[in-house]
Amino acid sequence: MADSAGGQARGAQAAPLRIGIAGLGTVGAGLVKLLRGNETIVAARAGRPIAITAVAARDRTRDRGVDLSGVTWHDDAVALATDPDVDVVVELIGGAEGVARRLVTTALEAGRPVVTANKALIAVHGAELAALAERTGVPLMFEAAVAGGIPAIKTVREGLAADRLTRVGGILNGTCNYIMTAMRESGRPFADVLAEAQALGYAEADPSTDVDGIDAAHKLAILAGLAFGRPVAFASVHVEGIRGIDALDLDFARALGYRIKLLGLARRREDGVEARVHPCLVPEKSPIAQVDGVFNAVVVEGAFVGRLMLEGRGAGEGPTATAVAADLIDIARGSAVPVWGRSADGLTQIEALPRAAFHEEYYLRLNVHDRPGVIADVTAVLRDHGVSLRSMLQHGRAEPAPEDGTAGGDPSVPLVLVTHRTRESAMLEALGRIAALSVVIGTPAMIRIDPG
Amino acid sequence: MADSAGGQARGAQAAPLRIGIAGLGTVGAGLVKLLRGNETIVAARAGRPIAITAVAARDRTRDRGVDLSGVTWHDDAVALATDPDVDVVVELIGGAEGVARRLVTTALEAGRPVVTANKALIAVHGAELAALAERTGVPLMFEAAVAGGIPAIKTVREGLAADRLTRVGGILNGTCNYIMTAMRESGRPFADVLAEAQALGYAEADPSTDVDGIDAAHKLAILAGLAFGRPVAFASVHVEGIRGIDALDLDFARALGYRIKLLGLARRREDGVEARVHPCLVPEKSPIAQVDGVFNAVVVEGAFVGRLMLEGRGAGEGPTATAVAADLIDIARGSAVPVWGRSADGLTQIEALPRAAFHEEYYLRLNVHDRPGVIADVTAVLRDHGVSLRSMLQHGRAEPAPEDGTAGGDPSVPLVLVTHRTRESAMLEALGRIAALSVVIGTPAMIRIDPG
Repeated sequence: MADSAGGQARGAQAAPLRIGIAGLGTVGAGLVKLLRGNETIVAARAGRPIAITAVAARDRTRDRGVDLSGVTWHDDAVALATDPDVDVVVELIGGAEGVARRLVTTALEAGRPVVTANKALIAVHGAELAALAERTGVPLMFEAAVAGGIPAIKTVREGLAADRLTRVGGILNGTCNYIMTAMRESGRPFADVLAEAQALGYAEADPSTDVDGIDAAHKLAILAGLAFGRPVAFASVHVEGIRGIDALDLDFARALGYRIKLLGLARRREDGVEARVHPCLVPEKSPIAQVDGVFNAVVVEGAFVGRLMLEGRGAGEGPTATAVAADLIDIARGSAVPVWGRSADGLTQIEALPRAAFHEEYYLRLNVHDRPGVIADVTAVLRDHGVSLRSMLQHGRAEPAPEDGTAGGDPSVPLVLVTHRTRESAMLEALGRIAALSVVIGTPAMIRIDPG
Repeated sequence: MADSAGGQARGAQAAPLRIGIAGLGTVGAGLVKLLRGNETIVAARAGRPIAITAVAARDRTRDRGVDLSGVTWHDDAVALATDPDVDVVVELIGGAEGVARRLVTTALEAGRPVVTANKALIAVHGAELAALAERTGVPLMFEAAVAGGIPAIKTVREGLAADRLTRVGGILNGTCNYIMTAMRESGRPFADVLAEAQALGYAEADPSTDVDGIDAAHKLAILAGLAFGRPVAFASVHVEGIRGIDALDLDFARALGYRIKLLGLARRREDGVEARVHPCLVPEKSPIAQVDGVFNAVVVEGAFVGRLMLEGRGAGEGPTATAVAADLIDIARGSAVPVWGRSADGLTQIEALPRAAFHEEYYLRLNVHDRPGVIADVTAVLRDHGVSLRSMLQHGRAEPAPEDGTAGGDPSVPLVLVTHRTRESAMLEALGRIAALSVVIGTPAMIRIDPG
């Protein structure tokens, strides 16, 4: 009802902004539904209608639940960039290279504004694309590339533009958060829960981009670049996924008052910038520990604004389409924020600090032989490397081999240690020495602890 | 370190954006500190320096911790609006009428962009000011008016511009949230905690704008206007504060699995728009229940984006100054979003629905005589008004009068009832009848329940 106001009449009369959509997967189809379903709202907010004049996708026959009659169909996505009936190119193909990169580059070179949801492309080639967009004087927008429906880009680049940001990050991959939440709640192992997530459509058939942390790292690199004013070299981001998290770790974390989340963390330090993605123990009472299932959360800290947390759906047809459409409305209104929030003129990439420079508290889980002196051996190594202990946990005793001589019995027990803050270089050396001890079986697990 | 990039050099060379600040209280002084302390960042983001050329405040002698030498001082704030050395007027005086209104009106009439933190002015006169700003073609920005450092305005007006929003609201007053949190944690009564909040500077000497819900209502009216595309008539917002919340209610809420928060709630319904501020029971596991102390939280729901929550500092020098400065950067960059997110042309105010149309679950606390048949009497009235009960709680028994005939003993006991969803009109009639029962002592307490 509120939308029947007079304001939109003017918007509806102006010449439409004509868009071409490359890629008609979930997000592309969602964008068509959003622009059609909210046509009046969008026209009022944009000051003119937004019309879909062209699309590009491989399969013309697949039913996407949207009517594309009257829309020009390009089999070659790159042709959208020079279609005379397209004012703005929407790139929803994905991938840092190949067609997506050629399409975006061609469109920017031709002076066409681009809206993309492609986190890999921006994370890897964002610096050169920004220079290109600035040279031809057109916007390159990518709100949908990070955290779906959460306006994280707009918040960091515009809402907090005046502050000196010191930290940005959060829960940036819904698939991993879903898996870790389900593992915690059900006690089931990673492989089981991953298979279930795949069946439910929360994880891809090839899950590695998600579960190995690469997707989160793309998003983190973009957020860090915006927060600190210079794109971060993607190859310098330290990335660990969640495959190594054992159900045991979730239990121990709970016993210690923590939850485990895959976090992206970027921090400004005196000597450089940290940018990394890895599982973290976070205090169970911290706001970020409450963000469960497929939800994402973005945390930003600045000297003046303090701490801000944004929580919402990080993926899916509706949320991602909302982000793409918001960029289109900004373009229709004539907004012109530079790609990295400041002039690309002379803007060089920053290398993130190496992991040896990290400085954290650490959770260690070892499998040790259940015999006297083990704890003394392990703690002596830590002492020799200047690592001081905060707490220690040992659950259960080893199961003795059955007296009847049959196989069975586990000679090892888990030993969990929590350290005070220490340099990761020292921690890694100590861990190498500990793994080599004869009382330690297999590879120790190490998870960093974050205050959340 | 990251700020030494080349990008800002260009910004620093361009002609500065000259601002005049009217009002040098906490936020005004904070803005001066922010613009001076982050000068390089701000110039890089804005594309040019932002320079303070004039200020207006009553007392020239007060030490505000900032150096204002070389800045023109106006004793009459309205004179800022026509100072030839001022490009943008920043209004930080406050109040819906008087000097603030005259200053903003004069500046807009003179074609000067305005940035304000004045929630009362925008909530009450936002429709006419939008029409004026549109007529003279200048921006009127007010990010700092709602939820301080949380970019709530930008999120609703730009980030979610394409979606049909169905709900907006949240914890919009940090003073009330601090008081309710402290009451819950300490078990102390409202008056005690208020006095403490005043001593700590979290509450004003005259706390009524905060504790009676008026400040939250101003913010809610603005958010609702942005979410639904038309300003909401402020007088139609239903407002209740927190003075009536008893420590007993916090205890009963806890026993029932809830917390009590002062919420602003605006909803789009088929038959109109709800806009209201009042205490609510929210489930203790809901995200908004976790937002404690002086923190604010803004919740937005839309058909496509789903549910989004933004949490951060809603007041204070740093966060509010960050919001004002973000608006200044947007203006420097040439952003031109209409005041209510769409053309003001023909934009009329909406009247919010009356409270009789609300439809909620209700928590009722009665003081009743501890005698047989009381519950039957009370529940019969509810039944007669079509109100069905979900649960009932009674703690303790009345204390009998001492046998020695001395004074003492309390003949009454609290009785708590929780209803299923019902129309507030029916609830109010039933409550009137219940209050008149001879077994009921004093005025029943009624608190609405929100899913959070």
